[in-house]
Amino acid sequence: MARPQTPQIAADVIIRLRGRPDAVVLIERRHPPLGLAIPGGFVDVGERVEAAAIREAREETSLDVSLDCLLGLYSDPARDPRGHTVTAVYVATADGEPRAADDAKAIVMADPADPELALVFDHRLVLDDYLRWLRTGQPAPLRA
Amino acid sequence: MARPQTPQIAADVIIRLRGRPDAVVLIERRHPPLGLAIPGGFVDVGERVEAAAIREAREETSLDVSLDCLLGLYSDPARDPRGHTVTAVYVATADGEPRAADDAKAIVMADPADPELALVFDHRLVLDDYLRWLRTGQPAPLRA
Repeated sequence: MARPQTPQIAADVIIRLRGRPDAVVLIERRHPPLGLAIPGGFVDVGERVEAAAIREAREETSLDVSLDCLLGLYSDPARDPRGHTVTAVYVATADGEPRAADDAKAIVMADPADPELALVFDHRLVLDDYLRWLRTGQPAPLRA
Repeated sequence: MARPQTPQIAADVIIRLRGRPDAVVLIERRHPPLGLAIPGGFVDVGERVEAAAIREAREETSLDVSLDCLLGLYSDPARDPRGHTVTAVYVATADGEPRAADDAKAIVMADPADPELALVFDHRLVLDDYLRWLRTGQPAPLRA
């Protein structure tokens, strides 16, 4: 049987630096859509999603992250203007100082509750789910 | 920028029938790889992963499922002999009697702990994670 076409899959990582629990590491994107984003990128064929999350975090922030949990899977067909992309969002912890590289033009240490953040994709929704996870320990709600 | 190639994405559903908490609904597959499987299939472009899970459950088992939670994301490149496929596995509940349809040749109501089940893909691992979730409430462990 032919393999059907499916959405693409990506991995994003909400990174907390040890000792700075109230902030998360965001990147200012170098490519459209421009704005602030949770670090992440596409999963390679032959690569586990968890490995892609760790690789993308390193490529964009120079941090070696330790994944804490899967926050949720985001798959609204309209969430990425470039085409339907499903992203797995992990919460992670890292030591050290982030440095922007690759697709990241700059690093922004941000309060995830700040309503003024110019976030791209559905990353406002993702950070709201993260704040809820911090309060309740619950993963992202299912959205059918 | 060109859209990179990524693994394909699928959704699988561990279905419990109300009143029968000790069994799960498995299908005997009509197409290779032959054997028993958790119902599921590929996500369509333009479709949420949760919606794909509900649709595939209905197509293969004739059950209208209610998704309870995301158990985990399975992305070992070797898990599907047909090519690298990431699957999102949900736990769900349904009423009524399952009837095999579409890619399902037969329905098997199985004890998920039964070591004799001829399961395809990584579905033994998935059911082990499900049994752990029943005991602990913990989602599937991350596997980097």
